Amino acid sequence: MDGFDAHPPGWPGHLLVVGAGLIGTSLGLAVRRAGGTVHLHDRDPERLALAASLGAGEPCADSEVTAGCGRFDVAVAAVPPAHVAMVCVDLLRSGVATVVSHVCSVQAKTEREVETNIADLGNFVGGHPVAGRETTGPAGADAGLFQGRPWAICPPAGADREAVDALVTLVRATGAVPVELSARAHDDLLALVSHVPQLVASALAAALTDHPEAAALAGPGFRDTTRLADSPAPMWGEIVSANAPAVRAALDAVAAQLDAVRTQLGDEATAGAVTRLVERGHAGRALLPGKHGRPARLWAGVLVVITDEPGSLARLFADIADSGVNIEDLRLEHAPGQPRGVVELAVAPGEQGRLLAALAGRGWSAVAGAGAPL
Amino acid sequence: MDGFDAHPPGWPGHLLVVGAGLIGTSLGLAVRRAGGTVHLHDRDPERLALAASLGAGEPCADSEVTAGCGRFDVAVAAVPPAHVAMVCVDLLRSGVATVVSHVCSVQAKTEREVETNIADLGNFVGGHPVAGRETTGPAGADAGLFQGRPWAICPPAGADREAVDALVTLVRATGAVPVELSARAHDDLLALVSHVPQLVASALAAALTDHPEAAALAGPGFRDTTRLADSPAPMWGEIVSANAPAVRAALDAVAAQLDAVRTQLGDEATAGAVTRLVERGHAGRALLPGKHGRPARLWAGVLVVITDEPGSLARLFADIADSGVNIEDLRLEHAPGQPRGVVELAVAPGEQGRLLAALAGRGWSAVAGAGAPL
Repeated sequence: MDGFDAHPPGWPGHLLVVGAGLIGTSLGLAVRRAGGTVHLHDRDPERLALAASLGAGEPCADSEVTAGCGRFDVAVAAVPPAHVAMVCVDLLRSGVATVVSHVCSVQAKTEREVETNIADLGNFVGGHPVAGRETTGPAGADAGLFQGRPWAICPPAGADREAVDALVTLVRATGAVPVELSARAHDDLLALVSHVPQLVASALAAALTDHPEAAALAGPGFRDTTRLADSPAPMWGEIVSANAPAVRAALDAVAAQLDAVRTQLGDEATAGAVTRLVERGHAGRALLPGKHGRPARLWAGVLVVITDEPGSLARLFADIADSGVNIEDLRLEHAPGQPRGVVELAVAPGEQGRLLAALAGRGWSAVAGAGAPL
Repeated sequence: MDGFDAHPPGWPGHLLVVGAGLIGTSLGLAVRRAGGTVHLHDRDPERLALAASLGAGEPCADSEVTAGCGRFDVAVAAVPPAHVAMVCVDLLRSGVATVVSHVCSVQAKTEREVETNIADLGNFVGGHPVAGRETTGPAGADAGLFQGRPWAICPPAGADREAVDALVTLVRATGAVPVELSARAHDDLLALVSHVPQLVASALAAALTDHPEAAALAGPGFRDTTRLADSPAPMWGEIVSANAPAVRAALDAVAAQLDAVRTQLGDEATAGAVTRLVERGHAGRALLPGKHGRPARLWAGVLVVITDEPGSLARLFADIADSGVNIEDLRLEHAPGQPRGVVELAVAPGEQGRLLAALAGRGWSAVAGAGAPL
């Protein structure tokens, strides 16, 4: 079991959030949990009311944002990419906050647009929490959304150090891990780990529309690989068009990996080329940080068959708790058309035998699964 | 809650499985659960002993396979793609079984190779369970691996109808859903839903090796999209080289989807092109069968914050069981660097409010999440 004590630090400041979507509402929830006060604004009164009722902050009408809500330590524009620069400009011009930031997936274009309108960028600092879901809107918001996730901090060349530090302090209070880098570096790297994976997942799913009969043969691997394809379409249109050159470069980098196989397809070198590609993929996966930010390690798997009825998971986890074994990860495998599923549990390798014995003793059908890095 | 009664039918026959890897061992376990007798063979004595000790069948030495083990209703070659045709030929020549099948991801090449060696293909029927994991070997085997999964059945032009029906009966007994189609059609469709997604996942992960600093910015979406990249490399070399023309066509189909965006990147049409691609992806995802083989439906989400310590999941699921609400799906969200995680639960939309109230009453931090199709 992991010992930990890393509760996020408190943040006793005043925050203004413009945009009560998934990220803005989650930010309000996280900052209020950290002891801060939050005012929220959104052009859509219903969305604003929902976010406020979830406890994300005091609602603040349009006319009040730059006049009546008060003076803020930080103001964050959490609006769609197409509007983020102008909202930042308005906030900077009004002088309503000591530091103005945003949460946009694209940094360089936003920075340029703000720069065009504002001479002194001293108190503007770009930001981007790499968190989120395939959904939008305040209903999916979660005070824990940012916990342990990277939050890119992208100060322009002329930013004051105090402004950067103030944003870092706010970010730490949400539980996120601040990663400081330039807007350009951010956009190049995000193209690789977010924008292109989105396009590729959508392309794999889209190719199915020309061959609908293939859907009956799709397994769990296809579902995982295309999960991002459920993401909202217009938002991705805005993100990719705002980061087009970096997306092109990242698409080319991924295409170059595929071309190393494609050019060999059908000749004797095919198997070798595919093997090398899959091995390079192993090396890439090994770079991902593990659970709790530590290097990835191998866990031991335990597979348990459960029936799909109320209480079966409760009985299983009660029996696991009695065994004293800590569960590091879990996944429920669907069994379409059947009354059973398989729960995959990951445990410390030294605990696998004890858990298997304990579950067998309680009548569960449990077998050892292969380990997997988390 | 779903009413169901669809236990797989019994299968009181005699099965020979050659190859005690993940699929062969799981097949042995599933058939024994269905009441059949199973003999197992593997060239690796340790793997064979492990599979037998897991209860997958009687071990059967090399010399016994075609002589001493008996006469079988069905023999299944569950060996790597490079060897599958020759094992099928040996089994057909020996006359040890009424029907000979295999479980290879590639059908047409295997069929051609068997045809070259055997004049009468009457009792040969190709097969392919679309199931599996990122792992190999008997340790990951599971009697429930095939439940509700498609199992392609690919009879050659000359196959006897009785042989096809015998394989269908065996497949049904594993809980799988038989899908009959030609070897050629199988290979074309699998290239689209399995072989190309594998290559693409590996390419996305491989591109990270040139930019290791991007790994610190990778979120959960990148992990899901690249999960398949953990699959074994040599096996995929064999699969892709055996299905090269279909893989090329499917790669081109996916590339065509991406090119619709790539050619617009940087001009005013970018956002529109991306939006259309993501929308086509939505349409593709909507084609996937839902849980229990029914059309996908929307579930309501409930997000619960848990601490990472023994017993917290047990307490959560005990409280859920007390509420009487059935859990349709669950996922554990990691929170690297932090002591907390978020459990995402999917429930029937009408049950969401009741579960939230019940959990809040027991002191859990639970909020409504957006619904997601399962």
